[in-house]
Amino acid sequence: MTVLVLNAGSSSLKVDLIDAAAGQTLAAGQVERIGAVSSLASFRVGDAKPERISLKAPDHAAALSHLLETMREADGEEDRLPDVEAVGHRVVHGGERFAESALIDGEVVDAIRDAFDLAPLHNPANLQGIRAAQKAFPDVPQVAVFDTAFHQTIPAEAYLYALPNRLYRRHKIRRYGFHGTSHYYVSRRLYELAGLDQQNSRVVTIHLGNGCSMAAIRDGKSVDTSMGMTPLEGLVMGTRSGDLDPSIVFEVMEKEDMPLAEVHTLLNRYSGLLGLSGYAADMRDLLAEAADGDVRCQQAIDVFCYRVKSYLGRYLAVLGGLDAVAFTAGIGTFAAPVRAQILYGLAGLGMTLDAGANEAANGTEAVITTPDSAVPVWVVPTNEELVIAQDTQKLALAARQSPFV
Amino acid sequence: MTVLVLNAGSSSLKVDLIDAAAGQTLAAGQVERIGAVSSLASFRVGDAKPERISLKAPDHAAALSHLLETMREADGEEDRLPDVEAVGHRVVHGGERFAESALIDGEVVDAIRDAFDLAPLHNPANLQGIRAAQKAFPDVPQVAVFDTAFHQTIPAEAYLYALPNRLYRRHKIRRYGFHGTSHYYVSRRLYELAGLDQQNSRVVTIHLGNGCSMAAIRDGKSVDTSMGMTPLEGLVMGTRSGDLDPSIVFEVMEKEDMPLAEVHTLLNRYSGLLGLSGYAADMRDLLAEAADGDVRCQQAIDVFCYRVKSYLGRYLAVLGGLDAVAFTAGIGTFAAPVRAQILYGLAGLGMTLDAGANEAANGTEAVITTPDSAVPVWVVPTNEELVIAQDTQKLALAARQSPFV
Repeated sequence: MTVLVLNAGSSSLKVDLIDAAAGQTLAAGQVERIGAVSSLASFRVGDAKPERISLKAPDHAAALSHLLETMREADGEEDRLPDVEAVGHRVVHGGERFAESALIDGEVVDAIRDAFDLAPLHNPANLQGIRAAQKAFPDVPQVAVFDTAFHQTIPAEAYLYALPNRLYRRHKIRRYGFHGTSHYYVSRRLYELAGLDQQNSRVVTIHLGNGCSMAAIRDGKSVDTSMGMTPLEGLVMGTRSGDLDPSIVFEVMEKEDMPLAEVHTLLNRYSGLLGLSGYAADMRDLLAEAADGDVRCQQAIDVFCYRVKSYLGRYLAVLGGLDAVAFTAGIGTFAAPVRAQILYGLAGLGMTLDAGANEAANGTEAVITTPDSAVPVWVVPTNEELVIAQDTQKLALAARQSPFV
Repeated sequence: MTVLVLNAGSSSLKVDLIDAAAGQTLAAGQVERIGAVSSLASFRVGDAKPERISLKAPDHAAALSHLLETMREADGEEDRLPDVEAVGHRVVHGGERFAESALIDGEVVDAIRDAFDLAPLHNPANLQGIRAAQKAFPDVPQVAVFDTAFHQTIPAEAYLYALPNRLYRRHKIRRYGFHGTSHYYVSRRLYELAGLDQQNSRVVTIHLGNGCSMAAIRDGKSVDTSMGMTPLEGLVMGTRSGDLDPSIVFEVMEKEDMPLAEVHTLLNRYSGLLGLSGYAADMRDLLAEAADGDVRCQQAIDVFCYRVKSYLGRYLAVLGGLDAVAFTAGIGTFAAPVRAQILYGLAGLGMTLDAGANEAANGTEAVITTPDSAVPVWVVPTNEELVIAQDTQKLALAARQSPFV
């Protein structure tokens, strides 16, 4: 089945046209600066070289239709782009409602809207993407795949914060976790690569990209994760602080005389690697500067790696032992020095880095520990789009069988 | 040397008269509700039975002089109370200034005042205690022993939050950690009990009382701890939340329409075990109710234990392995079911509970793991007052030798 996978941000739209059965990407593109006077698009059809254009995209619907049109034109006579048979949407927050993907109907749209409060930056944009796709493809099934769904198996002892209980009852303040589609994909791939029996396995997946999170996965099910009610908690990220003494929010408001909204922005957009280094949010830039002797860039890397290492220990205790670990996403798959620093000193816990293998693993599936390591550590590039396409195909096929799915 | 150890709270005062050389408590007492119309005092001299009285104590100085006077009267002809030769004060926050205890002079008082911002509830009260003791004993040396001092060896990668760097530079926003005197005492006692060489040791100390914190200690030095800039971060406590997604502060303000100060109160006084259970902050009450089948009390215990377990793993990874672990403070020394739940599932990490030994260990020094456990876990009752008395004696003796200490 040909599935269009859509990831809509507030002013961006990313699409992948995927042959879900073959697991093959037929075309991919994205539009940025939607709503600006002029928007920018880039795309690639088949194995042709990537192209960039500017276009008029006052909203997500216009962005989608122009992008798809441009891709078809670029394809020309080659006919590499079959008709879209289903659309799969990445939706960030499914609240407590969705433990799996869902065929989109009015009720699902309402539930996505109900979670606006929990993901004010993401869910409204995701819904705009759904509206755009419904307009472009009114007759094909649309499926929502939630970033939170995989983590709905986390037990109460791990998802409850130690707050007055009514905050959970009234406002659903609890740990949700994100990047679920990535943790799901990477753990499944890890079971294959490390030769593990899913039903009897304890693994940790480490997603280090722009956003960063980790998951403790027992017998195929997420049992804990580092992101919380929102994607702010947990690891150090490009511009997000991750874990903080909650008192710091009060302290910053008072000491810097900042209104609440500004503190929110400070923690989400000016903290993390950017805040610590005072230089850049991108790990590549920091590694380059640190290699040139910049102390603050090195310090940012140190805090980043230390936090990942401590979460790895945390999940080791939660799982009572580990069978394998996987790194994924941009930093996780490409930044060999970061992986090395995280694993430094963990030989006693069964993870001995193979320095050569680690250096060689660059965006490809590879084991980076020595053969005698009790806990093999792998690099596993993630593929969230494939999971979305496959889930979408499954639900769309089921919908063809019966309207009551 | 006879040392008076003083722990002053905002409306309370606790004193211990200690023979520092012998490590023996000669008398102990406390006053509560200082500043109220009528204050309450309780005390015990030698091995006499405890007494309770009410007294007039408009301020800390009055409370101290009345309490000491009453204790001398109760002692009568027995003469068990030698003259005070030095006074040791528990001071909560020493900022970055104090990595050890300090003989109190004008400069030290200024530094304690400088840290008012970092510990607004504690440091002003501690200073009132110092003023009261200076008034009562103008001619004896006074020493400040800081809760934060032991943790000043924590490295930057563990004490820096991932925030814009200027928040550390301008306002000293960083991890400090507390309960340092307790972690220090318990780790030293653990080295003796477990037969460890301090210079080559990796231990975790778990202080579970009204406040709760853990420390990772390498070669005798604290390298990480769970409390942060303030005592709010980290473990679940009686009424404090411990770790939270920082976004929750914003969410609660908005959803409950609460001003900042109220959220602060909510997180410090109505969260933790009390908030989760909706019943009590005291672990004894929760254990009793949970045994009777109360689900929310059990859930509060579950979240509490889960958090401790995850920090234990965290420090296992930070230290790269463990040589021993110790539980201390009220819950840590007396609540056997809590210790059992924390250690459940950790046999694979070298900690196998000896159920009988664990049940038997009630407020006494005892090992609670099986003899074949690679990582022995101990119960070690803390003795912060003794550390304060000994530090005070050391500095007071040095001051007798030279005025330039």
